[in-house]
Amino acid sequence: MDALLTDIEALVGAGNVLTGEDVSRRPVDWLSGASCRGRAIVRPASTEELAAVMRLCHAARQPVVAHGGLTGLVHGADVEPDELAISLERLTAIEHIDPIGATLTVQAGAPLQAVQEAAEAVGLQFALDLGARGSCTIGGNIATNAGGVRVIRYGMMRQQVLGLEAVLADGSVVSSMSRMLKNNAGFDLKQLFIGSEGTLGIVTRAVLRLHPATPDVQTALVACDSFKALTGLLARMGNALGGSLAAFEVMWQSHYRLLTTESGRHTPPIAPEAPFFVIVESLGQDSHHHTRLFSESLEAALEDELISDAVIAHSAIQRQGIWAIREDIEGLIAALTPLLTFDVSLPIHEMADYIVALEAALIREWPAARLVTFGHLGDGNLHLSISVGSADPETRRAVEQCVYTPLAALGGSVSAEHGIGLEKRDYLALSRTPEEIALMHTLKQALDPHHLLNRHKVLAHYSG
Amino acid sequence: MDALLTDIEALVGAGNVLTGEDVSRRPVDWLSGASCRGRAIVRPASTEELAAVMRLCHAARQPVVAHGGLTGLVHGADVEPDELAISLERLTAIEHIDPIGATLTVQAGAPLQAVQEAAEAVGLQFALDLGARGSCTIGGNIATNAGGVRVIRYGMMRQQVLGLEAVLADGSVVSSMSRMLKNNAGFDLKQLFIGSEGTLGIVTRAVLRLHPATPDVQTALVACDSFKALTGLLARMGNALGGSLAAFEVMWQSHYRLLTTESGRHTPPIAPEAPFFVIVESLGQDSHHHTRLFSESLEAALEDELISDAVIAHSAIQRQGIWAIREDIEGLIAALTPLLTFDVSLPIHEMADYIVALEAALIREWPAARLVTFGHLGDGNLHLSISVGSADPETRRAVEQCVYTPLAALGGSVSAEHGIGLEKRDYLALSRTPEEIALMHTLKQALDPHHLLNRHKVLAHYSG
Repeated sequence: MDALLTDIEALVGAGNVLTGEDVSRRPVDWLSGASCRGRAIVRPASTEELAAVMRLCHAARQPVVAHGGLTGLVHGADVEPDELAISLERLTAIEHIDPIGATLTVQAGAPLQAVQEAAEAVGLQFALDLGARGSCTIGGNIATNAGGVRVIRYGMMRQQVLGLEAVLADGSVVSSMSRMLKNNAGFDLKQLFIGSEGTLGIVTRAVLRLHPATPDVQTALVACDSFKALTGLLARMGNALGGSLAAFEVMWQSHYRLLTTESGRHTPPIAPEAPFFVIVESLGQDSHHHTRLFSESLEAALEDELISDAVIAHSAIQRQGIWAIREDIEGLIAALTPLLTFDVSLPIHEMADYIVALEAALIREWPAARLVTFGHLGDGNLHLSISVGSADPETRRAVEQCVYTPLAALGGSVSAEHGIGLEKRDYLALSRTPEEIALMHTLKQALDPHHLLNRHKVLAHYSG
Repeated sequence: MDALLTDIEALVGAGNVLTGEDVSRRPVDWLSGASCRGRAIVRPASTEELAAVMRLCHAARQPVVAHGGLTGLVHGADVEPDELAISLERLTAIEHIDPIGATLTVQAGAPLQAVQEAAEAVGLQFALDLGARGSCTIGGNIATNAGGVRVIRYGMMRQQVLGLEAVLADGSVVSSMSRMLKNNAGFDLKQLFIGSEGTLGIVTRAVLRLHPATPDVQTALVACDSFKALTGLLARMGNALGGSLAAFEVMWQSHYRLLTTESGRHTPPIAPEAPFFVIVESLGQDSHHHTRLFSESLEAALEDELISDAVIAHSAIQRQGIWAIREDIEGLIAALTPLLTFDVSLPIHEMADYIVALEAALIREWPAARLVTFGHLGDGNLHLSISVGSADPETRRAVEQCVYTPLAALGGSVSAEHGIGLEKRDYLALSRTPEEIALMHTLKQALDPHHLLNRHKVLAHYSG
């Protein structure tokens, strides 16, 4: 251990500066399982310890990478051999719950699911939800502005954060732990740290907003005969259900057929003949009113030919069966390996044409190419699973060109919810103007002039 | 006209650089009616014109103040004799509405009410609402992160903005006009300009999020016998109404009695005997379900003694009659002149004690003092109307000490929704830490190093 690590160990205690195999046997990337290459993993036990660590790192110009649950998908947590990983794994306490004010104060390393359960225990809910709930952490959810399956109704992670605390590159602590729903006293600094992927500060604690519980979950799978019907249905259900529409998840036939009849992995609740299938989910309080409103709204949509077929889940098992088709990433991997996955957003009315054109472009280049599409349609967000027979860097790059290039003209985004990390950094300019990127560099320069925080991620590092 | 103004006039055209009496006869402050003291008012017709104006101002180190509807309450739009006012009054177009994506693209000078009406015309709604809707502008709503009467349900202005465009101090244009609900492609730069009161950039255009219409409005006035019952009722209604609770506006008896029996301005729908009166409002889609859910929820609260009396509005007239008591600012002014008003937030469970202690402190100092309280309780936001017989600067300062000082220990905010402007600048440190304020200065320095944008507002100007 060199002098810096020895000094850090003196701060965080023996056993909390991991080196050698303790580092390399930890994976750094959920998808690939690639091992951590950092020179050490540091595990502070408090904001104060982390601040002291960062003061040492700042003096030594030692770059660091903050680590949460490592469930990201864009290589945002990769660690170079000359970098330190700062793991928030010892900061997992739920410090306070205020049931009247509907707030929860938590340390950044707490898993999302622990927060959800703590909110449920006081009769409320934490609204963010996503597949990785058991592993991902609140700090990571904040740093990446996580999305998930309830964004139509509750918004993304940014909307759930009332206050936060972050350690800056120089070790100073910016504590904006407001519990106020309304607080216009000066600049809203927390916004800087939400969604900036650990490049401007390391989030250590947060005050989260809770919502009333919505125990009555109504779920249906419906078939739509056209994209026009699909968007008509979205508008109709949004209106009919008022604020309670919580998910509008569309599977193109390519996705639905692959994971049901084609692979035999799931029994299709509706025959896979229609071009589009939608999971419509509504979250309500009162079971009687809400159940009736949901079924009546679907019946009206059926009468008006917005949908051609529908199945309402009448049990948790049936509900899980419907969601399992949508969430079967393993099924996609099994069928489409080597799989390339993408997360984009674009105006809803452009989606149908975009997918048709993309599929044609892929097949022109790779005749056996397959494009499988599902998405949070209500959020303007599509997830693309693409197989062209290879995933080597050159092929990946060629596929990225096909996927990302058309988005610029459509005003779309190369990253709806996964972030930029390293993977999409070279495409940032397709979604953001030169003036925007210049302003991002201005912020980075102002907050982290020595590029110590998650160096190379999101923005290219000007070494000069 | 000097050289700079002549050059600016060449850009924006004759008649769009106002000077002399054309400036001084315009009020700059809604409450006092004080006249504008700036050396000129410049009215650009486009983002490009404003950018060109700012390039000239930047070269000449000419400070400017952006003007919207001038309905602010904290002297955030005051203009010094050496400053230029930049009025957005010619930028009022609603440029685009996408009913499927539920977005509206608008220029910053458009009044809030015009946006609300444009959304209604396509069967949707724009969720922000506040009393000044006819005068205040979207740009001002964004610059101040406006709150209003539907925050519990829809959030503040920040939550309504998907994209925006701003002109920086040096005249560069940062266009982040994303129409995407989800866009994690790099830093979310728009957050810098929302709520920073025109100190970091001048907002010129925005993409706003629309919501499904909620034509069924259910409103009740209820009486509560204790603060505990009040918070119990808030939790109960939040749960019972799921996502549809839209307002929970509490009048302390001081407010309700003053504006009903004491002044004779309004007939009290409920006798003014209880300590607290609440306007509960719920916004729904389906009239039948929603009406029943609302009345059943209130009946249950009555049975459980959370409320001691209730009146449900059965017509728009009755609804307006209830709201008129809450919104009768003229009545407060008439009774309490010289009136001092405050806008603070604090944890809900601290409110009752805070008000009792504040009233005692005021009466200790000014035996005839009156404190009249109402607030958006569900948002943790209280509005205080205080009369101590004088409003001279020294007295005002002494009252401010009474109001603001206790908030620091409670984790409250000296500004819930009105902003800081000039009026609360000296109290910013009660709600924000030195590290937070240092970071605000870092941002100001990075974006506006010559302090050309709304100089002196929010943060003290370091001239050195």
